[in-house]
Formats: sequence, structure tokens, C-alpha cells
Amino acid sequence: KKLRVGMIPADGVGREVLPAAQRILEALGPSIPKPEFTHLDAGWEYFTRHGVALPEETADALQNDCDCALFGAVGSPTHRVTGYSSPIVALRKKLSLYANVRPVHSIEGLDPRPVDMVIVRENTECLYIKQETSSHSEENGREARATRLITERASKQIGRMAFRIALSRAKPDHPASLTIVHKSNVLQLTDGLFRECVRSVMKENEEWSDGSKIAVGEQIVDSMVYRMFREPEAFDVVVAPNLYGDILSDAAAALVGSLGLVPSVNAGDTFVMGEPVHGTAPDIAGLGIVNPIAAIRSAGLMLHHLGYIEPAQKVEDAVVSVLKEGVRTRDLGGNASTEEVVAAIEKRL
Amino acid sequence: KKLRVGMIPADGVGREVLPAAQRILEALGPSIPKPEFTHLDAGWEYFTRHGVALPEETADALQNDCDCALFGAVGSPTHRVTGYSSPIVALRKKLSLYANVRPVHSIEGLDPRPVDMVIVRENTECLYIKQETSSHSEENGREARATRLITERASKQIGRMAFRIALSRAKPDHPASLTIVHKSNVLQLTDGLFRECVRSVMKENEEWSDGSKIAVGEQIVDSMVYRMFREPEAFDVVVAPNLYGDILSDAAAALVGSLGLVPSVNAGDTFVMGEPVHGTAPDIAGLGIVNPIAAIRSAGLMLHHLGYIEPAQKVEDAVVSVLKEGVRTRDLGGNASTEEVVAAIEKRL
Ligand SMILES: CC(C)[C@H](C(=O)O)[C@@H](O)C(=O)O
Ligand SMILES: CC(C)[C@H](C(=O)O)[C@@H](O)C(=O)O
Repeated sequence: KKLRVGMIPADGVGREVLPAAQRILEALGPSIPKPEFTHLDAGWEYFTRHGVALPEETADALQNDCDCALFGAVGSPTHRVTGYSSPIVALRKKLSLYANVRPVHSIEGLDPRPVDMVIVRENTECLYIKQETSSHSEENGREARATRLITERASKQIGRMAFRIALSRAKPDHPASLTIVHKSNVLQLTDGLFRECVRSVMKENEEWSDGSKIAVGEQIVDSMVYRMFREPEAFDVVVAPNLYGDILSDAAAALVGSLGLVPSVNAGDTFVMGEPVHGTAPDIAGLGIVNPIAAIRSAGLMLHHLGYIEPAQKVEDAVVSVLKEGVRTRDLGGNASTEEVVAAIEKRL
Repeated sequence: KKLRVGMIPADGVGREVLPAAQRILEALGPSIPKPEFTHLDAGWEYFTRHGVALPEETADALQNDCDCALFGAVGSPTHRVTGYSSPIVALRKKLSLYANVRPVHSIEGLDPRPVDMVIVRENTECLYIKQETSSHSEENGREARATRLITERASKQIGRMAFRIALSRAKPDHPASLTIVHKSNVLQLTDGLFRECVRSVMKENEEWSDGSKIAVGEQIVDSMVYRMFREPEAFDVVVAPNLYGDILSDAAAALVGSLGLVPSVNAGDTFVMGEPVHGTAPDIAGLGIVNPIAAIRSAGLMLHHLGYIEPAQKVEDAVVSVLKEGVRTRDLGGNASTEEVVAAIEKRL
């Protein structure tokens, strides 16, 4: 048995962090099925050469020939470009990767404040359905409209994922907490539906609804960002519609060492794709100094979601000990190269 | 000549902080026209009794009998309530208060990090137009859609306001910076239009476009939240569509002492309404311990926008010296009451 991993480096530092993650997966040896990597194209740079940001072969290969995937990072044009559309947004939708799971935790002795949360972001709808139209009116000149979609199906699906994750974090003496983020004071129908659906799935499972295992609360998105910075220790699992989740995960990342440390998986019921939360970092791309840890952790998180719990833990332990030891890239105030960090982690596996 | 101020305390601590602001305006003496206050109803609590959140008389009185206004804070129902709609959102729209200006700055010796920025938030459109619909589909069950509107008119209007504010902050030896926040990598048409319109007004005024006075940049909203926490000193004037501006101003508030310090004005071409950025704080409402400073500063900011620059500065100076002296409410780690803070500020005017 093999583990067939689709590799989509896309743009910028995506091309440096994905090879790093590959080396770590290879270094895990027989604790996982032998990984087999398929390089797949996508991205802004690919678009500039071929006129398409997500070639059909890439989506086909992921669906037919891969067990899982890793995505690097995607650049964006600095002006409007007709026909261009973000390949990561398209992939999430195409592969029904309805959850974007983003754990953010501090490392004892390194970070000033204890943070240990998981952002569970709905990954297929909200403003990300990209239904936009343009028009013109006497009064306003040019006008543009976007549709924000929230559905019962997707909200319940992400709600279930959030409850499952919360339950897995509950301790015998301490319930996990689940915070539902919304803005239903303004968006009564859309965010109202999201909130109601997440709350409603609670009743589907006795362990979720029992109250001793998961304490459910909610926060309006603006005040959530405020509180996340003021009392990050108050939050555990956080579930949010797509755009709020996007913003909240960057906010949470700001609480720990660097965005270069924060991993994610795009998860569906039958496929999982790891993806560092950081972007293409054009200022340092190609210099060999990008922090590979977000991508390496994303590979670990991907293994975890596939059920390889122990190898996933091994990756995380190796990352933490390398960080504690002081092998750190620039974003963390160190001067290690990407290569040095990868080698140090490899050595610990 | 009088200064006719409409007072809309609305809910919760709004009813404590508005009287505080009133006392400060009264204490300013002849440096401003004698203020005359009209109490006006609105809010969630008012809705529960009268079935309407913003009575027509309130809007009428503001439009016909007031020179300016102060708004307290508005509560929100914890579940969906048919017919309820936020009165503050309605007022902004009705009075064409197209800009929400939210200065956030640290106080030397009190805050750990230097912060000095102004969030200029578009205040009438985006998802706040509240065009929402519900439907049902086989595939998704219940569905809800909201429309996000961005127009050339409003984007240029807020752009001009942002450039004016930036210019007023430029120093002979150091240009002001203006950061345009958007998510045009996903919302190409709506956020693309916003970005383009803000950039385009730059050309309307030589001082704006000259480059030595204002340096224009941009940030994607998620990375903006990250950077705001990592390098707040990098930002000066920040202009954003409505919802991003809402979130960013809470994020900025988290960088200084407390949300209880951060003021705003809702400003149009002919009317201005001060409003603290904080909410109703139901946990402490009625206890006489709420921080009145956000409301007091909002009154100062309102005076500033009306052209009473010196009295506005006097209010700000008094606030800062009281804070430095240690007369602080609980949110700032002190134990002063609302009354003690107001009295201390009064004494310094
Ligand atoms: C690149 C962009 C489309 C993407 C998003 O908004 O989802 C990114 O910010 C992320 O969080 O993965
Ligand atoms: C109460 C709410 C409608 C309001 C908003 O979202 O504008 C508040 O958060 C604010 O920032 O003034």
C-alpha cells in the first residue's frame, strides 16, 4: 500500500515549503505507507503562462489518483484580471473540502501567552461562492454586488466537525469550549441561519449536548477579534463562516511566534489537503529562508486526519523540539535557513 | 447661538456613558456654543416595549432640530426577532453618515506599544445594506443569501475622507500613510471596485497625489489583521469597506488599554454623530463602573468635526492626564467608578 500525495506548490514560497514537507513525509519511514508524490500545476504564475489557474488535469489527478494532497500558496494579481480565479478556492469547492481546520497553539517557554485553539472555518460558501455582478446607476455610478450564501447543509456539516473536534479536546475534569462566531446582529438571516444550524447539531449526539463535555458559547465577529487578543486563553474550538474564519485564523496566528508556523487542512468526508496558512511571501521567495514549519505541520495534520495519529504526533514533537532548541528562521528572529530547519526536524524523526 | 445635541443612549451602558459625555460638554463653558441636549429614544429595549427600534421622531428630531448627536450603544437580541433591525445601522444610512472615523492611539507610559492610527470605515453599504433573502433547496435545505454592495460613489466619498485625514496627519519630514484594505483576491468585482475608487480619488488633489505627503499602500484584510498586531506602528490611516472596518477597529482597540477608551464619529457632509466603539456591556450595565472615556472622547471628536478644534483638544488632554494620573475604571485594571472618572476629567477642563 502506498500513500499517494498530490503536491501543488503553486506560487512563491509554496515552491520551497512543499519540498520541505515532502522530505519530512519521506523521513517518517515505515510508520506510514510509503508516500508517492505527484507534482501538480496551479497558481497565478501558471495562469500568466497558460491562461488558466487550475488546470483540469490537476483536479482530475487529485480526485482519481491521490489519497491526499498538500497545497503551497497562491499569489494574487495586483489588479483585476479577467478570467483569473483563485485555484485554492476552486479546489476546496471541487473536492468538497468543506472544513478548513486551523489549530494555533503556543509553545511553552517560547511564546509569551498560552494559546491553544482550533479555528474551524466553513470552507465552501459565504462570500467565497464568488457570485459577483457589476452594474451602473445614475445615483451611484459603477456598482458591484456579491452574494453571500449560507446553507443549512454546510452550516450543519461544519457544526458537526466542530463538535467532533471539541469532543476530542474535552478533558475528564474540564469541558472543551466551542465558540460560534457570527454577526447576526446585522446579518439576521444568513448569520442567524449559521448560528442556529451549528447549535442544532448539538442535539444529534448525546456527548455533544450533555454539557459536561462541551460548553457552547458565541461571539459577534468584531468583538471576537478583540477578545481573541485580550484573552486568547478563553478560547478553545472556534467555528465560523468562511470569511470570518479566514480573518480569525490570521488573528490567531498573530498570537504565536509567526504566521510561518500555522498549518491547516482542508478536509472533506473523503479527501484531505494540507495547506500552510501563510501566503506566497514574494519578498523572500527563492532565497531559501522561508519557514517550512507551517507546511511541515500541515503534512502532519493531514496524516492525523487520515488516521496516522502517531506519525503525526512525531512530526509535531520534532517541530517543537527544534523550535525550542533555537533552530529558527528569520520570521522567528533566528537566522536558520529553510534547509537547516528541515534537516534538524528530519534528524529528530 | 446654541449647540443642539441629540442624545440617544439606547441600551445598557449607553445610558451611563452618555450622561457622562453630557457633563463634559457642559463643563467646556464658553469655548463652545452653549449645548442644549434633547433625549431621543431608540434601541433594543425600546423595541421590546414599542415594537420599533428607531422611532420616526428620533430620526426627525436629529434631522430637523439638532446640530449633532451622541449615540450610546445598542443591544442585540440573542435569537432572531422578526421586525427588529439595528437602529445604529439605520441612523447611519438615514442621515447619510457615510464615514465612521475611529482613531486609536496609545498613551505614552501606559501602553506597551506605540499605536497611532485612524480607521476610516465606509458606513452605509457592504453587507450592511441588509438585503437578505431566505429560500429552500433540495440539496441544501434552508438557504439564506445576503447582498454585499459596493458603489463608486460611496467608495470615492470614503476615499476622499481618508485622503483628507491622511493629509492632516502628514508631517513636513514624514509622509502620512494610507492603507487600503480589501479582499480583492476573492472579491474581484466588489473589493476590486473599492480599491480602484479609493486609488482614483488620489488624482483629484495635487497634495494627495504628490507622494511626498501621503504614501498609499494596501493590505488584504486577513493579513491586515495579522500585521496590525505584529507591527501596529506600521499603520497610520486605514480605509476599509464597512464590515472589514468594523472588525479592524475592534482589532485596533485591542492594542490599546481597552475598548472602553476608543471613540468614533459617524460623519456625513452635514451631520456628525459621536459613538463609543464599545457595546452595551450587559455584565456591568447599571453598576456605575463603566468606563465613560470612549463616550467622552466621542464627544470631543464630534466637536473636532464641527470645527471646535481647541475645545476638542482640551477634552483629549484632560482624558490623557486623568489616565496618566491613575484614575482608571476596571477595564483598565483600576477601581475608579464612572463618576470618579467624569469628575476628574471635569476638574481638568
Ligand atoms: C488566498 C486566499 C484566497 C485564501 C482565502 O481567503 O481563503 C487565504 O487567505 C487562506 O486563508 O487560505
Ligand atoms: C452594533 C453593530 C450593528 C455595530 C456595527 O457592526 O457597526 C457595532 O459593532 C459598531 O461597530 O458600531
